[in-house]
Amino acid sequence: MAFRVEDRVRPYDLIRKKRDGGELTAEEITSLVDGFVRGEVADYQVSAWLMAVYFRGMTHRETADLTMAMARSGRMLDLRGIPGVKVDKHSSGGVGDKTSLVVVPLVASCGVPVPKMSGRGLGHTGGTLDKLESIPGLRTAVEVEAFVEQVRRLGCAIVGQTADLVPADKKLYALRDVTATVDSIPLIASSIMSKKIAGGADAIVLDVKAGSGAFMKDLHSARTLAQVMVAIGSQLGRRTVALVTDMDQPLGHAVGNAVEVREAVATLRGEGPGDLTELCLSLGAEMLRLGGRARELDEARQLLVDRLRDGAGLRKLQEMVSAQGGDPAAVEDLDRLPSAPVVLEVCSQQEGYVQGIDAEAVGRVAVILGAGRARKEDRVDPAVGLTVLAKRGARVARGDVVALVHARTLDDAQRAASGLLEAYRVGPVPPEPRPLVHGRVG
Amino acid sequence: MAFRVEDRVRPYDLIRKKRDGGELTAEEITSLVDGFVRGEVADYQVSAWLMAVYFRGMTHRETADLTMAMARSGRMLDLRGIPGVKVDKHSSGGVGDKTSLVVVPLVASCGVPVPKMSGRGLGHTGGTLDKLESIPGLRTAVEVEAFVEQVRRLGCAIVGQTADLVPADKKLYALRDVTATVDSIPLIASSIMSKKIAGGADAIVLDVKAGSGAFMKDLHSARTLAQVMVAIGSQLGRRTVALVTDMDQPLGHAVGNAVEVREAVATLRGEGPGDLTELCLSLGAEMLRLGGRARELDEARQLLVDRLRDGAGLRKLQEMVSAQGGDPAAVEDLDRLPSAPVVLEVCSQQEGYVQGIDAEAVGRVAVILGAGRARKEDRVDPAVGLTVLAKRGARVARGDVVALVHARTLDDAQRAASGLLEAYRVGPVPPEPRPLVHGRVG
Repeated sequence: MAFRVEDRVRPYDLIRKKRDGGELTAEEITSLVDGFVRGEVADYQVSAWLMAVYFRGMTHRETADLTMAMARSGRMLDLRGIPGVKVDKHSSGGVGDKTSLVVVPLVASCGVPVPKMSGRGLGHTGGTLDKLESIPGLRTAVEVEAFVEQVRRLGCAIVGQTADLVPADKKLYALRDVTATVDSIPLIASSIMSKKIAGGADAIVLDVKAGSGAFMKDLHSARTLAQVMVAIGSQLGRRTVALVTDMDQPLGHAVGNAVEVREAVATLRGEGPGDLTELCLSLGAEMLRLGGRARELDEARQLLVDRLRDGAGLRKLQEMVSAQGGDPAAVEDLDRLPSAPVVLEVCSQQEGYVQGIDAEAVGRVAVILGAGRARKEDRVDPAVGLTVLAKRGARVARGDVVALVHARTLDDAQRAASGLLEAYRVGPVPPEPRPLVHGRVG
Repeated sequence: MAFRVEDRVRPYDLIRKKRDGGELTAEEITSLVDGFVRGEVADYQVSAWLMAVYFRGMTHRETADLTMAMARSGRMLDLRGIPGVKVDKHSSGGVGDKTSLVVVPLVASCGVPVPKMSGRGLGHTGGTLDKLESIPGLRTAVEVEAFVEQVRRLGCAIVGQTADLVPADKKLYALRDVTATVDSIPLIASSIMSKKIAGGADAIVLDVKAGSGAFMKDLHSARTLAQVMVAIGSQLGRRTVALVTDMDQPLGHAVGNAVEVREAVATLRGEGPGDLTELCLSLGAEMLRLGGRARELDEARQLLVDRLRDGAGLRKLQEMVSAQGGDPAAVEDLDRLPSAPVVLEVCSQQEGYVQGIDAEAVGRVAVILGAGRARKEDRVDPAVGLTVLAKRGARVARGDVVALVHARTLDDAQRAASGLLEAYRVGPVPPEPRPLVHGRVG
């Protein structure tokens, strides 16, 4: 067995340096990333290096350099043709997280341009693109030029990442995924931020989720991830703020695709669930402040509330839907969205206070119904999903309807119902309140 | 970029388990090793696992299971046709270490069969096969059947490992070599022991070197390596003893190939350097005891001394040389061995006591002369080398001859001489004595 002779030279030294706790220079990190993308650095060396990073970590400087090296591996968007401070928004993913569908048009309706590239759902977490595509006709595969033009003209767009965006991240993530090196905060942070940097916005608001439904289960990790991402943004000259927010139970009530669009529209009408509305206002206020539309968060928040009241945010969503080929009437008349043939009521079999709802378990139930993907290749069913009615702290009696299942078949619905009941914890006394926003970094 | 779907299954779990500090089962380790050898487990996964092992270590049980899985990956020698307890010997490598050339025939001359498979030199350390091959005509590439038959008939053989011995180790080592995962004690120990286990001996005596010329620079690491290897031997039912011995300066005087054979012959005549003779007696006594020829080490030692006196060890070397196609007269008449055209005296430029001789530096000088290999593909020159006359503790005056260089050209000789002088440290007072045998494990 002979591995390549040239492997003995530079990549070897970089693996050893990280293995021994050293700090790689920007030039070293760039040579590793570029070499990997070009196929000159072997995957077996990169995976050893990734595992060394897993154990040794990276400094903020190294993490920022890795982010930049990845961002530069593909196309970097140039948004200078769009007037104003462009503000991007990212969520680390969760269950029932339809925030982008609300916040992007709402902030744009206040005059701050929001160029947003999103991802698809995978595993128990949903994806904004899948949700948006439940609107008949809507396209998220948009050419970069059309994307930029739409943001310039309308103030916002939500599209899929183009294939030429951050190829290094795609290749590195695929390798991390099979070598147990996903769970490393600097690697997670640089993966997320590389896409934001390549996306070209001037400022970034991050929503880092913590809890059972989040990638980061504990608050400490979520806070650390937020800090590292804010540090990367600042090192790379992008104003960045992160909120650490709760994902210990689903956000809002709806979990799925069309059901989440319905809830997002309700929220833009000012009739949304309290937690979702509150989170949208918190994130949106940060975006308006970074976008220069308000000096203070209170002032920014009031602007957003006004846009909920006067319907400007909803109209902006309609414009965006229309621009991307979707049926704008579906946003007015929600019956035009796909709906599931079977709706089953899920009744509590216990009595007491809801102590918690395992958000990851709820997400898995949604995947089983067909609302999400177990594997990347899977197709999602836009119509199916869940409505989680009784949330943390709610008082339930035996037989109370705690949730609705929207399913393709009765069999699916019954399986989902029993899975959902297992996600509920009910106890005799009300639970301690858990804040929606755990902290802010920026 | 898509890595293989099946990579997400078992290998992934084993990487993660080790990453998180878990202990792999024998079955898990075997599936990883076998899968890697068969090409079913990807090298990028094995390298990530190796790096996780680097950081997390392995229990003695895991290390023994890895050793056995590697040993079983190829041919396992069956030595049951040879009567008696077969005792193998291994040295972790050093500079001027010609111990095997002395100990193997000496122990065999006492009636304990020694079936020895050796390696070649690499980097600053020499290899027994290269030394032996400086005897005209001698072959070390011997078929397994002929090897077993020679040990049965004569009591000993020193041959190269056959290609079908421990293929897993060859493949794993090649991967470790390019991924900075060589320096891991359980990986080093299992690599060495897998070859000993596949070699089929009943008992094993290990010489673990510590010091500047050794792979293990510090005593603590050498002792740990010795302990792990003895634990592996005991778990796998082979009686194993390890001596931790000094390699802070070259062993004996000669460093090279033919020059080392000359010194080995002198030692078998009872005229060898004190340190080399002492080490051969210490290792040989352990071998005789494990081989059941003596109950106590003192008694074993006396048997060996008798064989040095009566020349039986030397005759055994001649028989072995002859059996392997070498010129037996070359062992009597050392002038028949290759000699270098240029012999240069190296004179001290300082006055005082030799504090130490950097053995690794001496080994590198020998490589430059052509006695060793910088790369595996390199050929060695049997004639060239060094004679280190003044050793640690010696009193030297300015102009005293401290060493001889045996070179192909005067230019080579002069470069070697200056390199050699740099390896010497001379000071005004005698150094503290450093023991030859630092410890014993078994």
